[in-house]
Amino acid sequence: MKGFYYHNPTKLSFGKSTEERLGKLLGDNHNRILLHYGGGSIKRSGLYDKVVDILKEMNIEVFELSGVEPNPKLNLVRKGIEICKENDITFVLAVGGGSVIDSAKAIAIGALSNEDIWKFFTDGIDVSDALPVGVILTIPATGSESSPSTVITNEDGMLKRSLDSDLIRPEFAILNPELTLTLPDNQTFAGIMDIISHVLERYFTQTDHVDLTDNLCEATLRSTINNAYRLKENTMNLDARAEIMLSGTIAHNGILGIGREEDWASHRIGHELSALYGTTHGVTLSIIFPAWMKYVYKENLDRFVRFAIEVFRVDGEGKTLEEIALEGIKEFESFLEDTNMPIRLSEIGISVDQFELMAKKCTNGGTIGSFKKINEQDVMNIFELAK
Amino acid sequence: MKGFYYHNPTKLSFGKSTEERLGKLLGDNHNRILLHYGGGSIKRSGLYDKVVDILKEMNIEVFELSGVEPNPKLNLVRKGIEICKENDITFVLAVGGGSVIDSAKAIAIGALSNEDIWKFFTDGIDVSDALPVGVILTIPATGSESSPSTVITNEDGMLKRSLDSDLIRPEFAILNPELTLTLPDNQTFAGIMDIISHVLERYFTQTDHVDLTDNLCEATLRSTINNAYRLKENTMNLDARAEIMLSGTIAHNGILGIGREEDWASHRIGHELSALYGTTHGVTLSIIFPAWMKYVYKENLDRFVRFAIEVFRVDGEGKTLEEIALEGIKEFESFLEDTNMPIRLSEIGISVDQFELMAKKCTNGGTIGSFKKINEQDVMNIFELAK
Repeated sequence: MKGFYYHNPTKLSFGKSTEERLGKLLGDNHNRILLHYGGGSIKRSGLYDKVVDILKEMNIEVFELSGVEPNPKLNLVRKGIEICKENDITFVLAVGGGSVIDSAKAIAIGALSNEDIWKFFTDGIDVSDALPVGVILTIPATGSESSPSTVITNEDGMLKRSLDSDLIRPEFAILNPELTLTLPDNQTFAGIMDIISHVLERYFTQTDHVDLTDNLCEATLRSTINNAYRLKENTMNLDARAEIMLSGTIAHNGILGIGREEDWASHRIGHELSALYGTTHGVTLSIIFPAWMKYVYKENLDRFVRFAIEVFRVDGEGKTLEEIALEGIKEFESFLEDTNMPIRLSEIGISVDQFELMAKKCTNGGTIGSFKKINEQDVMNIFELAK
Repeated sequence: MKGFYYHNPTKLSFGKSTEERLGKLLGDNHNRILLHYGGGSIKRSGLYDKVVDILKEMNIEVFELSGVEPNPKLNLVRKGIEICKENDITFVLAVGGGSVIDSAKAIAIGALSNEDIWKFFTDGIDVSDALPVGVILTIPATGSESSPSTVITNEDGMLKRSLDSDLIRPEFAILNPELTLTLPDNQTFAGIMDIISHVLERYFTQTDHVDLTDNLCEATLRSTINNAYRLKENTMNLDARAEIMLSGTIAHNGILGIGREEDWASHRIGHELSALYGTTHGVTLSIIFPAWMKYVYKENLDRFVRFAIEVFRVDGEGKTLEEIALEGIKEFESFLEDTNMPIRLSEIGISVDQFELMAKKCTNGGTIGSFKKINEQDVMNIFELAK
């Protein structure tokens, strides 16, 4: 196990109607806040009205910025920063899914800095301050509700880049699984793949002696897959929705990665697909992860054998280690197919044309990942396996 | 799953030599602190000198209070409160195991209150403020390093009582597994039983649809048991020491209980043994928990079947559910015996004399626990099973 530092002060308020606790969680310290959201879904569901009513009753002046799209864009972030600076905003409230939260986090950093916000994503400038962010989550997927990460896409050059800082862990996250009952299937299952990927990026490590977190990762994977099947049967199953919502937070609050070297190559490769084609994050992962697995499993066969046996209960009787490992990857692909997730680029109409460009952009002359250090040619090979 | 609120802001600094980060974790805000510890072991190990050197170099004025015993006593807490009040102490640093931390937490509450500290334990007074507490952990066991709990024994009447408040979650916990290498076997394995008991108190629930946390509990139990056996083979195995230290924190940071009704009857019963006979906390649990299991398993047979299969890999082939459940309890007892933990009161020389008194004290005319509500007669019956 490696040494680690872990600090996650996000307050989680979980359960039916917990959005009603918004006032209590906000406290008395903020009278000018930015309400940040996507489009009409929170208006149609009535959540928008509920939130605005609570804020008005608290005599909070609300500044609104809507229009966050999947793979949230830098331009809107800049707009949010401007609103915050012009109006002395002291709190950013994100109501939506991971894109809205990530956009809110970037705004929160930019609002208290004179640097251009994009430089934080590209030049490795340390975040020294940020406005507090609160979250009302409507899509379980990115885990951004208690993570220190934000991922933003710069339309200029179509660059999708991430940034980590403990200063942008949200102050609170309101998690009401009822709000997720009406999610369309594609968002539900792309979200679930995103959740699973956050565990996998931590699970596939070369760090030795990480037995406890191995077990916790496998536990989260099994439960998430189990509840995905329950939602496949009936998307209105509130108990399964609750489990998935909690899985999303656990998968990416950092606990599953403590003491482990994490990987994240699949995320980096997937980001290139989103940047260039606008592909949904979870879809990029369901295509790239199985291909990455096939490409790297020989780097630590035992780990892939353990994955097969502990997560998918593959019966090893009479099989070679390699056969067991490959059966685990196959089971994972079957699960993705069962939840109608694409596992090949061809299924979403992406051909070989831009493989080289994307491979170059995401490795940028170096390597990504740690389970196996992946260079430009490796990324090309992974795209080939994902064709 | 039940709704829940969860907030754990304790900073974890884990790994070799992490006590060297003490200064960074303390920051610049405190120039008068109370250093609280037990006896000579931290002096013999050199930890005391290291800590004092760091504090002196920071020009922090150090007030010392040593002498914390297992099952920490109210009188010493009162003494600590006095020192804090007289000297305008702003921070309590606990260097030791759970008893030292619990004592420090009680001092931290009392230092900022005009109420008698014992009233917080008996009269249900809400904690409204407390000094910040920091921890350098030397015994993995109680999980107090990031929990909201403290347990104190009042010598007057030999009452052992607990108190919960998010305000006493430590600000930071320094977790260096090297510091645990020299622990004597009895402390090592009593600590491990304590860790396991924190999971069991959450695992045995009547709350439905808690699949994710069920899995996380089982994962923690399996890993803890596995690493206990590794330590049985070689107590100097640093990797296993690290896993156990991390398990201790995970088992009691609250995550394994979110959304679940917890039980805690076995703890309450065990506290009476400690109060009356001074029995080590972990020893009381290794005696009471198996007896409690035998007494309550029929309340939810399925859960005990799951426990047997998922934690101890009991083979259910051809057996009734009851047989599987009982085999799980038997396996648990075998594990305790393998780690030289007593599982009967007679093994530690406690006879039936005080059963009635203890049963009366711990139920106090009402019931304890939630998996099965346990009254005075039930406690008597559990003592009988533990004879």
